[in-house]
Amino acid sequence: MSTWTPQAIEQALLPIVGRHGLLMGDDTVSYEHGARYGQGKALCVVRPATTEEVQEVVRWCAAHHIPLVPQGANTGLVGASTPDGSATQVVLSTSRLRQRCDIDAANRSVTVDAGMTLQELNEKLEPLGLWFPVDLGANPSIGGMVAANTGGTRLIRYGDVRHNVLGLQAVLLHPQAQVLQLGRALRKDNTGPDLKQLFIGTSGAGAVITQVTLEVQRKPQQSATALVVPTSDEAVLQLLQALEQDLGDYLSAFEGLSGNAMQAAIEHVPHLRNPFAPEPAPDFAILIELEAQSSKTYTGLDLQEALNQFLQDQFEHTICNAVIGNAAELWHLRHSITEGARALGKPIAFDVSVPRSRIMAFCRAARAVVDQDFPFLHVVDFGHIADGGVHFNVIWRNDAALAYDPAQVQALRDRIYAMVVQDFAGSYSAEHGIGPHNLAYYQQYTPAPVRQLAQGVRQLMDPEQLCGTVDFGLNATVH
Amino acid sequence: MSTWTPQAIEQALLPIVGRHGLLMGDDTVSYEHGARYGQGKALCVVRPATTEEVQEVVRWCAAHHIPLVPQGANTGLVGASTPDGSATQVVLSTSRLRQRCDIDAANRSVTVDAGMTLQELNEKLEPLGLWFPVDLGANPSIGGMVAANTGGTRLIRYGDVRHNVLGLQAVLLHPQAQVLQLGRALRKDNTGPDLKQLFIGTSGAGAVITQVTLEVQRKPQQSATALVVPTSDEAVLQLLQALEQDLGDYLSAFEGLSGNAMQAAIEHVPHLRNPFAPEPAPDFAILIELEAQSSKTYTGLDLQEALNQFLQDQFEHTICNAVIGNAAELWHLRHSITEGARALGKPIAFDVSVPRSRIMAFCRAARAVVDQDFPFLHVVDFGHIADGGVHFNVIWRNDAALAYDPAQVQALRDRIYAMVVQDFAGSYSAEHGIGPHNLAYYQQYTPAPVRQLAQGVRQLMDPEQLCGTVDFGLNATVH
Repeated sequence: MSTWTPQAIEQALLPIVGRHGLLMGDDTVSYEHGARYGQGKALCVVRPATTEEVQEVVRWCAAHHIPLVPQGANTGLVGASTPDGSATQVVLSTSRLRQRCDIDAANRSVTVDAGMTLQELNEKLEPLGLWFPVDLGANPSIGGMVAANTGGTRLIRYGDVRHNVLGLQAVLLHPQAQVLQLGRALRKDNTGPDLKQLFIGTSGAGAVITQVTLEVQRKPQQSATALVVPTSDEAVLQLLQALEQDLGDYLSAFEGLSGNAMQAAIEHVPHLRNPFAPEPAPDFAILIELEAQSSKTYTGLDLQEALNQFLQDQFEHTICNAVIGNAAELWHLRHSITEGARALGKPIAFDVSVPRSRIMAFCRAARAVVDQDFPFLHVVDFGHIADGGVHFNVIWRNDAALAYDPAQVQALRDRIYAMVVQDFAGSYSAEHGIGPHNLAYYQQYTPAPVRQLAQGVRQLMDPEQLCGTVDFGLNATVH
Repeated sequence: MSTWTPQAIEQALLPIVGRHGLLMGDDTVSYEHGARYGQGKALCVVRPATTEEVQEVVRWCAAHHIPLVPQGANTGLVGASTPDGSATQVVLSTSRLRQRCDIDAANRSVTVDAGMTLQELNEKLEPLGLWFPVDLGANPSIGGMVAANTGGTRLIRYGDVRHNVLGLQAVLLHPQAQVLQLGRALRKDNTGPDLKQLFIGTSGAGAVITQVTLEVQRKPQQSATALVVPTSDEAVLQLLQALEQDLGDYLSAFEGLSGNAMQAAIEHVPHLRNPFAPEPAPDFAILIELEAQSSKTYTGLDLQEALNQFLQDQFEHTICNAVIGNAAELWHLRHSITEGARALGKPIAFDVSVPRSRIMAFCRAARAVVDQDFPFLHVVDFGHIADGGVHFNVIWRNDAALAYDPAQVQALRDRIYAMVVQDFAGSYSAEHGIGPHNLAYYQQYTPAPVRQLAQGVRQLMDPEQLCGTVDFGLNATVH
């Protein structure tokens, strides 16, 4: 229990962040639950507007041994930015940290304050013909994207966030709320260990990211889309390899959609059309997207035409049906799966990856486990096949014969993750990162020497483990 | 001075690495001098053939507090893999660490032992239509490439080595020659801090890299090349931006060659033709390369034709002359600059980078400094303009009026690096890394809190600083 009265908190924090920067009582509610998991109660929410204010808040928390939880746009899916139920943690929201946005168009780089959202950044880049191409369903803050190292649907072309970070600024807990500037707007810089990497993909552990310098890309001038039905599981990888060989310069997405996933979306999301109508949705389909930055003036290339011709040549070999075209409609189907799945019942989410050479085999094996040992559950899987990622989501349907049973859910999780890691050399958290929600698996599957090194690193920047909700140490725990 | 007699060394190390794995006396000579800087004397050279042998050697060194210097193909340019003159350091050469080469073509990944060279790897990948596209003048070992985080001429398309490392295995000094496996053949894996990053670009400090898992690419099916003369310095960046906008999917190199650089090559490298003959080489030229992975069958694209048409439209705007074509010949000119420069006299090498938006301004300013304050020196600069890197090399000509003077060289270094870092927000080591040769600049230009964090990290894996030739700590020193 906290011994801090509201008066004492106001006295300490109002001089630092001002009236707009401090939320207490009922105003904190929207900062206290995660987008998917996590629900707690904060001591208060602070919303500093400058790096200096972050520094003051961090210094105050450190001086009084008060844990703090950095939070961006609160779109994370593993509860890493949600306070626990103790009402002793300060949520440090970066939502007002958004003054700076310095674009260097000739360098194709931008430096932004951590609280700026992806959508805002892209709106600012658009008039210059640029964008930050790491895309995903939500609208996260840039700082949050770095903390989670988000991947998204176009990773095969643009890489994850880590691939696009040139520099960052972070406030460490120790020593004395130190501000570190790591990296600059440079593509080549080999001046010692690249310490900024220690702040990417760590779910806000140990430091608050306040500013980020990103490489950005030219916006594509052409794109082409198709939804295709493979002739077999084996054909999926053959098709992917053929695509990379024949149209590899352009491949930006290769998304697998299971029949269940498509059906869930089509049946439950209003106005969503089955693109295969009047036929029913097939057992499996792949959403292919190509993008070209180049100008037709010089290449003479019609990308949709090239894709269509490629698909025609693949016909009967690797594909047996194809819907050409309307990109917005096809992506709408892809992006509606989560909503459709939720309408069916309670989702049990698996964000996993394997070497992509084994992704179809993994999905088949995992589905077999569910069908055989958890027949009351319903698989709604979809994934980023080209990069080996799959959202192997399982639904406890509202109309299931058995009532929702957390012990069964736990048993399923243990089974699937064991299969991913041990049988398929994969990862139990491909994109979402580590939060309280899956920390036990970090403890189980990360070898002790690696956890020990992680613990040592954390000690250097945050010896009391005050910042963030997870501990990557030898005895990883939620705190 | 070492108290180890040859007999004692043999007694300790022969049981671990065998007769082929231990070199002493005159056999060590080729392992004792760097490709450009560094010359010393080793206690002995060990060449373990397996990770287990590396582990045993590391354990022995740690137990007896003997410093060890990891060395790959010994092609590094900052002396980071060269022993000092004390004859007390063990050189650990990875040249026999080359059994494993597991290619997963469908995953586009490969796991190799650290001692395999880039050329060998590419020979193994070739039959599968794959390659590892980080290219450079030398033929380094893969472990060495990771330790140096090499960049090369095609970084703008494929990124540096860091961008292509999926996993690595390393032997730490502490605790107890621990073998760490960090990362796997996965493109998406957000399970905690990405600790493999601590072993990339650190010049062999703290650990011996024994195995690496790389992402590899499809080999291009088409390429196009031109050597163009820009109308002005300003036109260079305009041309680059126009290229990225109009042919951005294909741009793989955009290399700047100064007139002095071309002349040095043409005059001193046998059989090298001036591509602009009968006209003399211009003041500045840009080598443009496009590469397409895609098949002409589907795209209908003739890449050289597209480039030619683009150049035609740029004519008089950003370019005033162009030599279309023979890729081998044009690249030969580019790759002959170093040899040509060496023939002129003693090179003083600057491997620097700035935001590319400022690269032409930097080169102009740096040249002015040399012309004004060091008129007896001769600038032979060339660079990777698209990624902001420049080899601003300066030659103390054999026929210079003044005799070579190390104090003047030092003064020049200090001036140029100060300009790079302070005036142009750049890096004094873009590609070559930190070695004994430039550690003083690390000490000068890396803020103390960053060095402190680097020191802490090193302490975790190598508290006695036994491994590698440099110390990235608060008081960075050569040891």
